[in-house]
Amino acid sequence: MELKVSRKSKPEKTIVKVSNIEIGSGKPVIIAGPCAVEGEEEYLKEALFLKEAGVQILRGGAFKPRTSPYTFAGLGEEGLKILARAREITGMPVVTEVLDPRDVEIVAQYADILQIGSRNMQNFTLLKEVGLINKPVLLKRGLAATLKEWLLAAEYIVAAGNEQVILCERGIRTFEDYTRNTFDLAGMVAALDLTHLPVIADPSHATGRRELVGRVALGALAAGADGIMVEVHPEPVKALSDGQQSLDYNEFQNLMTMVKRFISQSA
Amino acid sequence: MELKVSRKSKPEKTIVKVSNIEIGSGKPVIIAGPCAVEGEEEYLKEALFLKEAGVQILRGGAFKPRTSPYTFAGLGEEGLKILARAREITGMPVVTEVLDPRDVEIVAQYADILQIGSRNMQNFTLLKEVGLINKPVLLKRGLAATLKEWLLAAEYIVAAGNEQVILCERGIRTFEDYTRNTFDLAGMVAALDLTHLPVIADPSHATGRRELVGRVALGALAAGADGIMVEVHPEPVKALSDGQQSLDYNEFQNLMTMVKRFISQSA
Amino acid sequence: MELKVSRKSKPEKTIVKVSNIEIGSGKPVIIAGPCAVEGEEEYLKEALFLKEAGVQILRGGAFKPRTSPYTFAGLGEEGLKILARAREITGMPVVTEVLDPRDVEIVAQYADILQIGSRNMQNFTLLKEVGLINKPVLLKRGLAATLKEWLLAAEYIVAAGNEQVILCERGIRTFEDYTRNTFDLAGMVAALDLTHLPVIADPSHATGRRELVGRVALGALAAGADGIMVEVHPEPVKALSDGQQSLDYNEFQNLMTMVKRFISQSA
Amino acid sequence: MELKVSRKSKPEKTIVKVSNIEIGSGKPVIIAGPCAVEGEEEYLKEALFLKEAGVQILRGGAFKPRTSPYTFAGLGEEGLKILARAREITGMPVVTEVLDPRDVEIVAQYADILQIGSRNMQNFTLLKEVGLINKPVLLKRGLAATLKEWLLAAEYIVAAGNEQVILCERGIRTFEDYTRNTFDLAGMVAALDLTHLPVIADPSHATGRRELVGRVALGALAAGADGIMVEVHPEPVKALSDGQQSLDYNEFQNLMTMVKRFISQSA
Repeated sequence: MELKVSRKSKPEKTIVKVSNIEIGSGKPVIIAGPCAVEGEEEYLKEALFLKEAGVQILRGGAFKPRTSPYTFAGLGEEGLKILARAREITGMPVVTEVLDPRDVEIVAQYADILQIGSRNMQNFTLLKEVGLINKPVLLKRGLAATLKEWLLAAEYIVAAGNEQVILCERGIRTFEDYTRNTFDLAGMVAALDLTHLPVIADPSHATGRRELVGRVALGALAAGADGIMVEVHPEPVKALSDGQQSLDYNEFQNLMTMVKRFISQSA
Repeated sequence: MELKVSRKSKPEKTIVKVSNIEIGSGKPVIIAGPCAVEGEEEYLKEALFLKEAGVQILRGGAFKPRTSPYTFAGLGEEGLKILARAREITGMPVVTEVLDPRDVEIVAQYADILQIGSRNMQNFTLLKEVGLINKPVLLKRGLAATLKEWLLAAEYIVAAGNEQVILCERGIRTFEDYTRNTFDLAGMVAALDLTHLPVIADPSHATGRRELVGRVALGALAAGADGIMVEVHPEPVKALSDGQQSLDYNEFQNLMTMVKRFISQSA
Repeated sequence: MELKVSRKSKPEKTIVKVSNIEIGSGKPVIIAGPCAVEGEEEYLKEALFLKEAGVQILRGGAFKPRTSPYTFAGLGEEGLKILARAREITGMPVVTEVLDPRDVEIVAQYADILQIGSRNMQNFTLLKEVGLINKPVLLKRGLAATLKEWLLAAEYIVAAGNEQVILCERGIRTFEDYTRNTFDLAGMVAALDLTHLPVIADPSHATGRRELVGRVALGALAAGADGIMVEVHPEPVKALSDGQQSLDYNEFQNLMTMVKRFISQSA
Repeated sequence: MELKVSRKSKPEKTIVKVSNIEIGSGKPVIIAGPCAVEGEEEYLKEALFLKEAGVQILRGGAFKPRTSPYTFAGLGEEGLKILARAREITGMPVVTEVLDPRDVEIVAQYADILQIGSRNMQNFTLLKEVGLINKPVLLKRGLAATLKEWLLAAEYIVAAGNEQVILCERGIRTFEDYTRNTFDLAGMVAALDLTHLPVIADPSHATGRRELVGRVALGALAAGADGIMVEVHPEPVKALSDGQQSLDYNEFQNLMTMVKRFISQSA
């Protein structure tokens, strides 16, 4: 049996729509924001900066999966409210992670796109739960997931009734530890062929190193990514999480200059 | 700060007790059963066979995490009832997996030990939930988890208040695909040093190949494992899941002969 | 002590010159050819096609490392002579692999660039031997080599006296087997920062799948590669080695169209 | 075509004989010594200690493959002479690594067993060269080699005419970096089934950590290894290479006590 997510079942590309933005339309989308929502004032300021810079979708974590139980795990519902406020002010849709099937309803109330993180790519009860809502889901590849397993995880969501799934390649775990993960460019390209769903790249988690983010993002776009998701923080050294891989405003503006140039040339 | 699970916080070994069985006492425990509970009659028959063979704890999946949404995912609560019935008849405690934080309560009603599977090792909301119950938890290592991440996952459970955690090495994902996973013997030995919690081995998932299970089990015990967990099925070729790695009764009896010999010699 | 290959020892980029071609100058170079030299007539025909298509350097194996002792291992010196003839006719320099320290002299007589393959990246006696000649060396990354080990392998060559080293990222071995290897885009970008030596990409070996080669090549160039090396064969299904990853003429012309567009836009 | 090294070509186990020692006979052999031969007096002293401890074969590197060109690479021929002197005094055969096809002849003059190291497992010209001599070859598994590639590397030696090949599992490279490599116990067990050649374990390189060596060695023996090879140094902290994984005399005597107990119980 062919999977519903397979190109063989549906050759034409799926375009996921969020307010007036189309993901998978051929023109790459830019998603950006801090790793976590750390406070209202800071988040709204950053949201305005990102809008100005040309970003289309805001990201920010309210529920953060953390390797240690003793580190900052997000602001929870308060974070969701800040995200909703940022959307109100900027008009930009927001994407945020959901960790627990019991939180799907509340997260869906505030967010425009629900993210399933790498560690939960095979959290099948969570996948089924987001399969029941009527909002797009951003499904990150598990850090040791094969392409097939990734597509099958997406299939859980689609089989449950939600066809608005965006895949996100964010690096896999290998022996190489100079980078946080190994960005699998060819796997991303293969996914673009194997499924009709949009596939974007997260060069921030893939590399874990600020100085590599921009060039990896450009590489992903040149290879056909439907978009990129980038971590940006006004003062990366003060970030409560993922500071090493977050771009500061200046770095991000430089990246946007390159991205816009790329997009205009490919048009 | 030292973790609560660290030997540095608590040098003496933790012994997890389940009815009259001690895990971590120096004498290895044997856990066995089919991958999934497939039906009452079959399960009870197998349970009696395993008791006779010298097994101390029964395993069997009622909620099964499956890579594809279209494969057998266990009998659910019906499976839990069969497990409880097997315990009643044999007097042996049972271990079974829980996938969803909303199911922790019901699984804890039926089972003696709750298993957190590899794919959920960093399902932090699930970890916190099993940290709130008063039953032992068997925490499998994630298939791409470092030792440190595995210990931090255990820390989530202990930090939430449940100190009865058993770790289970079940193979990691590497480039080698002759075996289903790569059994990390040295990682298991290191874990025995790093934490005071009991550490057991699952040679069935680690190898994925029936003919290797016995020797890997013996290797794990000789290296110091606090126990082994083995998949057994009366007719592996008919198993609804994991048939290739399940021992048939004859193979399992041969393994038990070796294991008993090993245990008596080490005594 | 800083390595000689490090940017910290020598901040300015090294440009490796081969006849009138500069590698590392900012304008990417294109290396192409069949996996192995299979016969004179075919090779010369292909060389003329590649010249016409805009390729700058020819590749072709005369000594082939093969996993099995029973498969075609190249034409040896006869293959070298064909390469030399192709250079004569087309005016294009040629790169070919050397496997044995005893063959370095003869390969250097015929070839313009000597390639050290992945399997020999830590064949230290071979590295020292090519460090003694006065021809450029193309050093492929080992399939399980960290960036640091790769740079240290280059250091062997430079320390022996030969500073004309070109690094080539060709994919690393990971759990993902949909692709032959995992192309490490971020590792390639990091290498471009860490060393002053030119760094190119080999999307053919990295992916092992013809349909992915072109997009991975474009991704590598957009991320800053100093060049690409691509396998091309007039009839890939008939190739004696690596047919699945070789582009046919039509596919290669399409790639060159994209590459030329990219180069003209970045100029 | 079945490989010559396959059990299918030759079901009965190959026993490799070195002086009066049999490798593959069912009784495990113990190989030990320092990583590198560092000086005559020290080496002879250690050799006498190891003989006394019950070791059967001495190891010691004269030509050392080193990741960096700037570290101690062994004493070369002088090291070979020391090895020969140790054999003369103790009556024990010696195993040492050969790196270069041009050195095979001289190493074979001094050593009883020639070792091919992990980095050279696919150095095909070297494999062919040791296939031409009439001395046993110890072939270590490459750090990213599949079982199939390892067997095919052995096939190169056997196909060239030398059937006296001993395989050695020494850990593979994975994402786990707590240990130097990941000892592949199940892979070793599988190799024992797939080939008739003897298969031994090297717990020193596999773990890279002294405190794990003993238990991993016992695990390997319990799982069926034909022998173990262990690094021992009188003062590991002063070792010129691999000090962290070398046992001191006291640790090694403890290991030998366990090993002898294991061997007598399995007899």
